[in-house]
Amino acid sequence: MNLFMQTAIALATENVRSGAGGPFGAVVVKDGAIIATAANAVTATNDPTAHAEILAVRKACQALNHYQLDGCEIYTSCEPCPMCLGAIYWARPTVVYYANTRAEAAEAGFDDSFIYEQVPLAPHQRELRMIHLPHDEALDSFLKWRASQSRISY
Amino acid sequence: MNLFMQTAIALATENVRSGAGGPFGAVVVKDGAIIATAANAVTATNDPTAHAEILAVRKACQALNHYQLDGCEIYTSCEPCPMCLGAIYWARPTVVYYANTRAEAAEAGFDDSFIYEQVPLAPHQRELRMIHLPHDEALDSFLKWRASQSRISY
Repeated sequence: MNLFMQTAIALATENVRSGAGGPFGAVVVKDGAIIATAANAVTATNDPTAHAEILAVRKACQALNHYQLDGCEIYTSCEPCPMCLGAIYWARPTVVYYANTRAEAAEAGFDDSFIYEQVPLAPHQRELRMIHLPHDEALDSFLKWRASQSRISY
Repeated sequence: MNLFMQTAIALATENVRSGAGGPFGAVVVKDGAIIATAANAVTATNDPTAHAEILAVRKACQALNHYQLDGCEIYTSCEPCPMCLGAIYWARPTVVYYANTRAEAAEAGFDDSFIYEQVPLAPHQRELRMIHLPHDEALDSFLKWRASQSRISY
């Protein structure tokens, strides 16, 4: 097995054994070396965003001192959920390798598949109640952004 | 205008004025009171996950000492991107109010719409390169999770 994937899976397995959290691990690799590793820490840290991939992306960005993962590879023990997939798009690594699938995660009791079904729906069609309150002042913040000389696009 | 939405929009506008980051703000409300606020901090903190909603969800969970936002409302100056929407599904608040839309965000130069188009695609069809490497050891971590007496489901 690929060494990096082996590391991601070992993090997932150890996380269950230790009782620290869900069976998920992730590794970020650059130039053939691991620059960040993480396991799921949702319940351990009371942070619903503390999935392995989110934590690994954040750590890797701190290591690189940049908000993007240029030239990086992500190895994760499970297909990223929509939250983590979105984070990975924003971080812009080169490739993502994953082992378990969202269907297998659903069988293990996780909401990944459900959230994948919800994301493409129009906001008013989702099970999550979402209400659009348009405001000129909100649009104005976008106009100010476009006009800003000091903005750093990301 | 709703006071909570006004606060979220003010955070977005101030973030541009100060040069701290993108034009996005979010507020979490419980029992009629604000329990967390945040503005986008991606470039300020070198963290691609530091969107206003992610930061507000994390702060609110710390305030509640729980990994879910039971009975909470989220007010955000812009429709959540797929990453933030996923985070909100995991956090399970009651309702989300948003002002600007993903289309307006796209016009302002952000990838929200693009990521919304990518998420529903099969992994191999996405512009992001994703490679499935199934492994028995990864599936075994799910079996161990299901069998664990100490697991805390989330």
